This record gives sequence, structure tokens and C-alpha cells, in this order.
Amino acid sequence: MAGNSFGQLFTVTTFGESHGPGLGCVVDGCPPGLELSEDDLQRDVERRRSGTSRFTSQRRESDQVRILSGVFEGRTTGTPIGLLVMNEDQRSYDYEKIKDRFRPGHADYTYQHKYGFRDYRGGGRASARETAVRVAAGAIARKWLAERHGVRIRGHLVQLGPTAIPFEDWSHVDANPFFVANAGIVPELEAFMDALRKSGDSVGAKISVVAENVPPGWGEPLYDKLDADLAHALMGLNAVKGVEIGDGMDAARQKGTEHRDEITPEGFLSNHAGGVLGGISSGQAVVAHIAIKPTSSMRLPGRSVDLHGQPIEVVTHGRHDPCVGIRATPIAEALMAIVLMDHALRHRAQCGDVASGTPVIPANS
Amino acid sequence: MAGNSFGQLFTVTTFGESHGPGLGCVVDGCPPGLELSEDDLQRDVERRRSGTSRFTSQRRESDQVRILSGVFEGRTTGTPIGLLVMNEDQRSYDYEKIKDRFRPGHADYTYQHKYGFRDYRGGGRASARETAVRVAAGAIARKWLAERHGVRIRGHLVQLGPTAIPFEDWSHVDANPFFVANAGIVPELEAFMDALRKSGDSVGAKISVVAENVPPGWGEPLYDKLDADLAHALMGLNAVKGVEIGDGMDAARQKGTEHRDEITPEGFLSNHAGGVLGGISSGQAVVAHIAIKPTSSMRLPGRSVDLHGQPIEVVTHGRHDPCVGIRATPIAEALMAIVLMDHALRHRAQCGDVASGTPVIPANS
Amino acid sequence: MAGNSFGQLFTVTTFGESHGPGLGCVVDGCPPGLELSEDDLQRDVERRRSGTSRFTSQRRESDQVRILSGVFEGRTTGTPIGLLVMNEDQRSYDYEKIKDRFRPGHADYTYQHKYGFRDYRGGGRASARETAVRVAAGAIARKWLAERHGVRIRGHLVQLGPTAIPFEDWSHVDANPFFVANAGIVPELEAFMDALRKSGDSVGAKISVVAENVPPGWGEPLYDKLDADLAHALMGLNAVKGVEIGDGMDAARQKGTEHRDEITPEGFLSNHAGGVLGGISSGQAVVAHIAIKPTSSMRLPGRSVDLHGQPIEVVTHGRHDPCVGIRATPIAEALMAIVLMDHALRHRAQCGDVASGTPVIPANS
Amino acid sequence: MAGNSFGQLFTVTTFGESHGPGLGCVVDGCPPGLELSEDDLQRDVERRRSGTSRFTSQRRESDQVRILSGVFEGRTTGTPIGLLVMNEDQRSYDYEKIKDRFRPGHADYTYQHKYGFRDYRGGGRASARETAVRVAAGAIARKWLAERHGVRIRGHLVQLGPTAIPFEDWSHVDANPFFVANAGIVPELEAFMDALRKSGDSVGAKISVVAENVPPGWGEPLYDKLDADLAHALMGLNAVKGVEIGDGMDAARQKGTEHRDEITPEGFLSNHAGGVLGGISSGQAVVAHIAIKPTSSMRLPGRSVDLHGQPIEVVTHGRHDPCVGIRATPIAEALMAIVLMDHALRHRAQCGDVASGTPVIPANS
Repeated sequence: MAGNSFGQLFTVTTFGESHGPGLGCVVDGCPPGLELSEDDLQRDVERRRSGTSRFTSQRRESDQVRILSGVFEGRTTGTPIGLLVMNEDQRSYDYEKIKDRFRPGHADYTYQHKYGFRDYRGGGRASARETAVRVAAGAIARKWLAERHGVRIRGHLVQLGPTAIPFEDWSHVDANPFFVANAGIVPELEAFMDALRKSGDSVGAKISVVAENVPPGWGEPLYDKLDADLAHALMGLNAVKGVEIGDGMDAARQKGTEHRDEITPEGFLSNHAGGVLGGISSGQAVVAHIAIKPTSSMRLPGRSVDLHGQPIEVVTHGRHDPCVGIRATPIAEALMAIVLMDHALRHRAQCGDVASGTPVIPANS
Repeated sequence: MAGNSFGQLFTVTTFGESHGPGLGCVVDGCPPGLELSEDDLQRDVERRRSGTSRFTSQRRESDQVRILSGVFEGRTTGTPIGLLVMNEDQRSYDYEKIKDRFRPGHADYTYQHKYGFRDYRGGGRASARETAVRVAAGAIARKWLAERHGVRIRGHLVQLGPTAIPFEDWSHVDANPFFVANAGIVPELEAFMDALRKSGDSVGAKISVVAENVPPGWGEPLYDKLDADLAHALMGLNAVKGVEIGDGMDAARQKGTEHRDEITPEGFLSNHAGGVLGGISSGQAVVAHIAIKPTSSMRLPGRSVDLHGQPIEVVTHGRHDPCVGIRATPIAEALMAIVLMDHALRHRAQCGDVASGTPVIPANS
Repeated sequence: MAGNSFGQLFTVTTFGESHGPGLGCVVDGCPPGLELSEDDLQRDVERRRSGTSRFTSQRRESDQVRILSGVFEGRTTGTPIGLLVMNEDQRSYDYEKIKDRFRPGHADYTYQHKYGFRDYRGGGRASARETAVRVAAGAIARKWLAERHGVRIRGHLVQLGPTAIPFEDWSHVDANPFFVANAGIVPELEAFMDALRKSGDSVGAKISVVAENVPPGWGEPLYDKLDADLAHALMGLNAVKGVEIGDGMDAARQKGTEHRDEITPEGFLSNHAGGVLGGISSGQAVVAHIAIKPTSSMRLPGRSVDLHGQPIEVVTHGRHDPCVGIRATPIAEALMAIVLMDHALRHRAQCGDVASGTPVIPANS
Repeated sequence: MAGNSFGQLFTVTTFGESHGPGLGCVVDGCPPGLELSEDDLQRDVERRRSGTSRFTSQRRESDQVRILSGVFEGRTTGTPIGLLVMNEDQRSYDYEKIKDRFRPGHADYTYQHKYGFRDYRGGGRASARETAVRVAAGAIARKWLAERHGVRIRGHLVQLGPTAIPFEDWSHVDANPFFVANAGIVPELEAFMDALRKSGDSVGAKISVVAENVPPGWGEPLYDKLDADLAHALMGLNAVKGVEIGDGMDAARQKGTEHRDEITPEGFLSNHAGGVLGGISSGQAVVAHIAIKPTSSMRLPGRSVDLHGQPIEVVTHGRHDPCVGIRATPIAEALMAIVLMDHALRHRAQCGDVASGTPVIPANS
């Protein structure tokens, strides 16, 4: 495959650029019989949509997802589901001034070297706008996983630049524009973001995603480990620079007696592994964390070169997110959902009739 | 593909278990005409081999790699290269006592739930022994990359449990059993490992891998980004819990003005991105870091359950590495090589005749 | 992949049903820099369109192809090309009467058993209408192959039910509604088809496709032979029951002295092989033939069962082609183009720098 | 994938050349728990082995298949099954004389142009010897299909050069060296082959393969139709020039009333479709036919060129089969088995919980 697809059995193929006519997605391999409507997709797409708070890009897109195929009489047919989101608020003129210059930290320079030229409007294919359809695809996976296996996938922002955000309660996440599981910290984040916007700089963020009720047994031990495929999907998200499973990078500092999750008949005693052992789900919560780099678009000038290699100074005035991490929680959830669903189907293919013959240990609490 | 292959055009498929007759690998898609001998592979395999210092498992394997196909008159023919390493020092009796119990932190429990039963001898397929043939495959990629593109791939251990290891010089790496780029710290590490072994505990580690001279343009922007495929390959390595590209998890804390790598005609001014922008190589060094969890095998007892769900205590006396990270540097290099080569071929397929029309910026120094 | 994609590096993924909102296609892996407009696609799509003669289905579709992405300033960017064709002339009411019955020879019964229910309107996903977007995708491949390699792909109808159609000249093909390379036989075919339509029966057909100027070396010897992938693509076309390369089924009756294509410095002396030896193109014309079964839709009643297994009689009155083979020539050309382009890229990936060191033998004339 | 693998979920990857050290195969994706021994594989491999009658190549190979992994305590573990067959009777000196010349009808010329050089000994990778391990892989699929679904796969030679062989009874097939289902015709075939060998010429053949008890629902409608994947696998077999499903090429001449298989509650009334409708199995016998070209190796001289493009005359004196079709029946069965098993798993992945809600119609008798 040429790169714009992911998932082996639940396969998501997307197309579209930031400032082209529209974006789309083909979801192939969805089991038949799943009840599905455009509303089911819209809910998650809405959470990712820009222009809904003053902390994100002011581009105004309705992001209406249309289902073009694969659903009949309200249920999936098993044939590919075609999704379409038209672009509405393209202002290409914003981008004329960057067409022959490379913004530092952006994909301008690398696209130019790979393809010989590029669609410079709004980042073209490299724009985070593409994630709208990934989220829609993820909503299908999430629904199937919930109905068929009781899987629940939730994410939250755990760090915004210098500020670590303590987890309080999941209920807060959808009640603030940052997707933080903490109500009290919101004013501080608002103030931080307002100051940041004024400064013209941008900032990174860290997000955690958790999938509960994943049964033991999902994942291909070599090389498509459940965590390897999560790493592929999450590192494949724009601006992500690091992916951790469970204790992640901290595992390098730990002793074996700290890290190993002991088991009792009543449950695992900890979840340092993040729900994956040997690439296969253990029945504990699958836990992943991602670091998202600060937006490379900013108003503070930076040194760069133009198409001819001449030195220039770059300043970005167009609409953009000062912290792309703020809108990334629903995307990370969607990617987790797609990977889990793909592995649910892969597991059923090979091991659909396996009886493990051993009790399932409860997840730790 | 069912999971035991990776790479799309330079494809590595492996088979074999720790205590079966042998391990093997099929490398498909290697360009024809590359000079290749068994010695070329053996060099890297040797660096990974167990039993070469007192700090690794005492299993004695000669790890002789045999080339069974795909090479004729000293050159690759373009047909699949079959590699075989026979197992010599299996002591299956060591494992009788764990056949009906789940070692905490190991894949025992998850294999049992996935497949209904498992080859319990030495971890079976989940054993790090499988990486011997991955390293052999990586040696092919490394050779082609070096000869065709001048790419140089090197890794080193940057952290051993609590101890961070400052980089001094690449020349030290192959002169100590830890693959550290620092001569002075070796006695401290030796003492640490000796004490660790006595304590019966195990420890994690962190490794960095760097590929220099990667030309700009490699990587598929969505979703098989160069960094996404690196994350897939590296997280797919046994015991890895985190993968970082460039500044990695630290990017979450940074401001845009810190992170973006400014460009001048004389070169990039920094390499926070780790050589990848928008999923495509920038011409800077490609830099990845991995965290390896502490070995789950240890002599200190841990709580667990047996096949029937009954509580037991597990102690591992068999041969094992108290820090699997120590031998992981050559493996990480091999995985970097395989991913880069795969993308070199993918890039040539689609963009083999592209002229970028813009100067190549030197990497930062 | 879940089945609705084909091609490994030039990858075509389609979605859409006969009576849904529309059909679409994602073409991934197209090299950048190819000049491409909607007109380039429309030409081929037009040749396949229904309702253009009295011998095909009277469904009226404008089949306007819209390019939604992957083309910027008139050239392909290297990112996925999204194509969309909206359905205009759906008359779903025609199909209410077949919703709970299985038409013999159709996919009704098999879809029901596979998916548990089906979109019964106009054959749903199994409709030949889906081929509109395959033809559009093929037009991209055809253009690249022509510009980059001088490849010319042409097909013609060689048999219509009982009537074999002698080849006279390629120039006739687009001057009649049957795609026959023979002007004189057209009145006979017209009369045959008129009588057939009156009879209420349907008929099969045979089509040949020829690609000239394919350079030697394309094709993966095992198992993605050039001819194996052609067979996959062509047998994957609705209603195809047989695929032949070169002499095809006749090879079973031949002696080696008859079949082998002798070589002289001036050229091959024959082309029984159809341009493929050992799965790799020889530089001769690549020649494939397909047999298309008679349309299963017909006015003459046939025995069948309904959803409950009760015996019924089926008669099809809806709009349909009495010979689907008549419109299949442009589709077969498109599939040949897609397979060749995919292999052109695969060949460049692995062997892009090979110098064969031996003269190229001219094709036979 | 680079070409030497086939099957998506039950994946067969092979390596090895005619005159290298050995051949091997990795079978990935086999469900766990299948009882499997080397004897299970050897039975089928034996049927394909050369040197067992005077009508095939006199190369003497024991073709002992060794299982190197993936089977533990007599059952498959779900991890990849490594298979190895060592070469024993290589006589490379036979091939020195053809190293710089292209045998007409062979892959010599095309390998040279693809790869720049080739392993000329015994056809190298293009040798039919590689099919030994495909047959071994097929034996695994065949066993699983039989035990899990009651599928029975049988093939027979239906034409040997000019002689069509009427089907009498399956019981004859393994009682003669030609795999014909007809006892009385064997003396005629023996005489024909003796005369052919004396003449120095070679001959083509046609084989039919039939799979019974395939349940309805296997196959991906677009583009990995069950018949498309069969066509891919069968056309991918050395020397195959045509593939037919059911009535095959004859369908071009038929009327709809002849071809469509009418349905009654007691069973289908015919099986012109060969068990596949819309790419999905119908529950009828899956029937495929292949035409195998006459061996290009023969003692009668043929015109060709050498590496430098100079005219030469080629005569083949080495060991070879005067009709490769004679040994191809077990291979065709193996390929059918692999494709069916792959689709059984693919179907279970997507539709493992589908209830069709409609009666299964018996196959016709």
C-alpha cells in the first residue's frame, strides 16, 4: 500500500488536502450489521472541530460528514464505507506568501524534496485537517468495539507545555475546551493560553488514552504487536514525537520488581505494562501516552531559506492552533479505536475458536 | 500479512522459537547486485550474541547464520534471501517447572489466552532469541544503505537503570560490553551489574540510534511516516515500552521557538525534530530513542497464578539477561536499517525521477 | 487489506453502490508531477458509460468524475487522488420486488450468506456500475505509462456469443458500439443484439487486451507474476469466468516446438507467451483475453428460491445490459493499465538501478 | 510485500533456488491447535516429487520436509511454521553451457533484464522445484479445511497435449503417474509420453481442481474475489497460461439461459459458475481449470541469442520434465487449499458472527 491506508482488516484510507474541495475516507472491512448513522460519526468529529473555542484555529468548518456507501437501511453492509467532508472555509490567498519559502519545523522542505513541488495552501496534505476523517473512521470502530466487546476508550490532556494536569475525574473531560480531566485547573490553562497567544509563541502537550475492557488475546506477537501498531498509528499523527505504553520511557529507570505487574486470582496488582504483554492485550486497560510538539506556525520570526536556498525570515500570520495538542484528544482516541478494532478482527480470524482453558484475571482497579 | 513480516518492499519474515530446532528469516525485495556473504551478516549477529560477557545470559549459541538462497556468485540475485540459524544450547528441562504457571511481566498469560496453549520453553516465540535473525536481516539493509547512499547507522546505550551515560565518542561503543559511548563509566556499570545480579533483580535501559546521511525525501507522509514506521519497528522489539523521535516526550514541555529547527543556507541550526518533518526525512540525522523495560525474569519471588487460576509464587532460575537492554543496541540499529531501506525503496518507486529543484541544506553539526 | 483495494504501490481503493449516493475511488501512489485533469479521466469513463447505444442498459448517468484531491495546479502532487462520481438515475422502486428473492446467477444468494443481508438495489456493491471509477483510475495509469514509457493499451471485443470477430484494424474499435476491430461485421452484431433483446435472453463475450511497448523486466517472479496479477485483476472484474495470457488455454494442446517463441537478434519470431516469461515482461506485447459470462439478468423466467428457501420464479424487467461484455473493453484496458503501472513502480523500487548488460530484442511484428 | 508471499491471513512466503542449498517456506497465520506432523506434509510432497516415474525429470530428491518452528507437542502454536527442504541432487555443471545464453520460452531473458544477472543453474528461482514447499504449505491448509469445514480438494489431469481424458472416477487418480481419473486411458498416455520423449519435443496439459463442501460466503467481493485470488494463485504457478472458473472461456459463447445455475430448494440445478457468484462461494463445488504450456526445455534445437545478442541455437540436454503438467496436479490442489484457507480466515474476521437467516441450498449432484 502506498501509505495512505492503515489497518490490515479494518482499513482506513484517506484522501484530501487542507484547501482542496474536500476530504474523504474509505473504511473497509467493517463487519456487517452494525447500526450506523451520520450522527454517530458527527459526535466525535464535532469534538475535534476547529473554531469552537478561542484557543484553537479560527477556521470555520461545519465538518459535516456524509456517508456515501456501505450503509443500507441504517446498518453497515460489510462493503466499504465512503465518507466525505467538504472544505468550506479555504482562504488560499493567505498562503501565496509562503509558496516559495520553507517554514521551519513544517513539512514544506521535506515535501519539496520528496515530490518536487507541493500544495502549499494550509499545509496541503500535511495539514491536521485530514484528521477530521480519521476521527469519523474511528467513531465507527469505537461503536463496534463498545457494542460487541464493551470496550470504552477515553483520552485526556495530561500536560500543556510546562503544566502537568493531575487526573481528577473523567467526567470533566468534555466540559472544557482542553479535554483535561480536572475542573479546577481550567482557569490556569485559559490564562496560559491567552498569554501564549499574545506572545506569538506556541507550545507542546501530552495526551493519555485509555481503553478499558479490552479482552486478553488481541495483538500479533511479532511484529504487529498491539503496542507496535498503536505506536505506528499514534506516531503517524501529525506533530507526535513520542509514544509510550504504560510506564513508557520511565521503564528505563525501573527495576524488575517495580515494573512487573504481579498477578493474583483477584486481579493484577498494578498496570505498569499498560495492558500489553509480549505484544498481546492482557485484559488490563490499554494505556498509551503521546507527546505533541509545539505548533511550528507562530508569529515570532524564525530563520529559514526559500526555494532557491536564500536566507529569509518566516512569520506565520494565518489561522492556526497555538497548541495542536488541545484538539488532539479525540484523534488519539480514534486511532486507539481503529487499532483495537483491527486487532479484534485479526484475532478472530486466526483464533476465533480458541478456548484458553484458563481463568481471566480481572484488571487492577 | 499475519504479523511475522515487516517492511513493505524490503520485507523481513521470521520464524522460530527459543527452543525449537532453529530460527530463520526470509528477506524479500533486496535489490540485485549487492555483494553479500555470510561474514557480512555474522559481524552484526556476533555483537548481539549471548554469553560473550558475564553481564548477559550464559546460554551458549554460536549463532552461525547460513544463507540458503538469494545470493549467487557472491551477489544478491533479487530473489528472496533465506537465512537460517540453528539452535544449539536448548535446555528444555529448565522450563518444565514453568509450563503451567504464568511468570508476571512475561507473555505467558497473554499467549495462553490468545492461542489456547503455548510453547513454554524459554519463552517460545516471545524469546529475544528471535532477534538474532532480525539482526542478520538488518545487516543486509545496513550494507546496501551504506554502499548506495552512504548512510551510517549507530546506536549506543544512554541509560542503564538509574545511571544516565553521557555521550563521549562513538569509538567507545564496541569496546565495552554495554555499547556505551563512554569509556570512563564502564567500571561503574560493571559494578552496578554485578550488584544487580547478586540482588536477583533486573533493570531497564534506554538506547539511542542515529542514522546519518539519510537523504531528504524518505517516508510516506500518511500514515507510513518514516517515524511512524520506526515507532512500529522499535515498539515491536521485545520489552520496548516507549519510542521517541528527536526530542521525543520532552517536546510536550517545549515552546515552538525552542523546538523548531531553524534553517540557514549553511545548515539547520538544531535537530529537535530528529531528522523527520511531516513523516519525511529532512536530511538531518534520524534520531530515535527507546526505553526497554527491566527483564521480567528474576530470582526475586513474585506473586502470580497458575493455569488453573490458583495463586503461586514465581522465581526464575534459568539463564537470562538481568538487563535485556544491554544486548539491544545492535538490534535497534538493525531495525533502523530495515525501516530506512524499506523507505528508500518505497521512495524510489514513487518518486524515482523527481528533481526537487531546491538546494539540500546540510545537517546541523 | 479488506478486499476493496488493489495494486501494491499504485493502489486503487473504491467504494460505492449502484443505488447509493455515489461512487468513489482513492488512487494512492501516483508519482508526482503528472499533468492531470478531469477531462483526462472523462474520456475513458465516457467509453464505458451506459445509455449511449440501444445495446446497453438505458440507465442515464452523466458519470462526471470529480477530482477531490491529489492534483494541484494541474499536476499530481504524489498524495492520494480522490475521485467521486455521483449517482443520478437511481430508481430504487424497480428493486423492491427482488429484495427477498435470489436471482439465479447473481450474487444475491452469496451476499446474503456472507453478510446476513444486502443492499438489493441494482445489485448494490456487486453492480458493474462500480467499474466507472476503476476506469477513471485506469486512465491515470494509462496516461503515466504512455508519457513515461510509451506504453499503449488497447482492447477489442473478439467474440460476441456464437460470433467470433476477426481482427481487421484498431481504428475501427472506437467507431462502433461493440468495440470490435472490424467494420464489416457491425451490422451482423447489431442484428444479433436486436434479436437477442427481443428474445429476452442474454449472451457472453470475449475480449482481448494488448499492451505494447512494455519494457522487459516488469513483474515479480513469485507470486506476483505480471500475468498472475493480471489474472487477479481481470478475474476480479464482474462476470469474468476465464483469463488467458497469450495462447492461453490452447497451450494445453500445443507442443513445445509450437509454443516457444524463438528469438533472433532482429526480434522474437512469435508471441505465444503473450509477452510474459517466468512472470516477467519480455518486451513483447502483453496480451490477455477474458471470457465474460452472459448477464444473469434476463426477461426469461428462471427457477430460484426466496429468502425463506421457498421456490419462486424470477424474471428481470429492470434496466440491464443483455451483454455486459459490450461495455467491458474500456474496463479491461483500465485494469491492464493499473496492473502494469503497479509493476512499473514495483520494478523501479527494487531494480531501479539495474543495467541488464544485454541487448533488448524487438517485439515480433 | 516484495512478491514472494501470498495469502493475506494464511500467508505463505517461500525462498530457495533449484541448485542452492535448499528451499524453505514460512507459513504464517495458521490457527493454533491443529495437529500437525512432518508426515502430514510429506504425503502431498511425495505426490509431486520428481523421479518417481519414467515420465518425469530424473532428478533424485528425497524432498524430506522438516518443520523448524510453529509446532509444539504435535500441534500448531499459532506462530509461524518454518519448513525446510534441502537440495541433494544438484548437478550445476549441467548448466555451465547455458549460463550466457537465453533458452527460448524460459525466464532466462526476462530475469536478465529485470535483475541484471541470474542464477542460471536449473532455472534458479524460476524452477518448478520451488513448488515442493508450496505443496507442503498447501498440505497444512488442506488439513485444516478438512477438519474444520469438511472441505475436500481433488484435482486431476483432464488433457495431455492432444488427448482429452474423460472423467471416470476419482479413485483412479492416485493409481497412475499422470493423475488422470481414468484407468483405461493410461496405456495410451504412456505410449504417447514415450514417443514424445523419443521425439525430443514437449507438450502442454490441462488440469482441473475441485473443492467440495466449501460453505457459502467465502470471498471478498471486490477485488479479492475468491475466483480472482484463485486466478492469481494458479496463474502464478510456473507455465500456467490460462485459468478458468466453472465453464471458463466457454461462457463467452453461452446464452444466459444456458449459463445461469437455477436454484431449487432441493439444490442448484447445475454448476456452470464453478461455485463462485459475485466473487463469493455459493456452497457448490469450487471448480478451476488451468492450462499448462509445454516445457520450454527440449532436445529439439531452437533459435535464440546469447548475452551479447548474437544468434545461437539452443538444445536442452539436462534433466527435465517433457510435460510439467504431469506433476502439477498436487500443486494445483495445494494452491486451491491455500486460497480457500486464506478466505476462510478472512471471512471469519469480518463476518464471524453473521447469521444469514436463509437456508443453505445443497450443491448440485
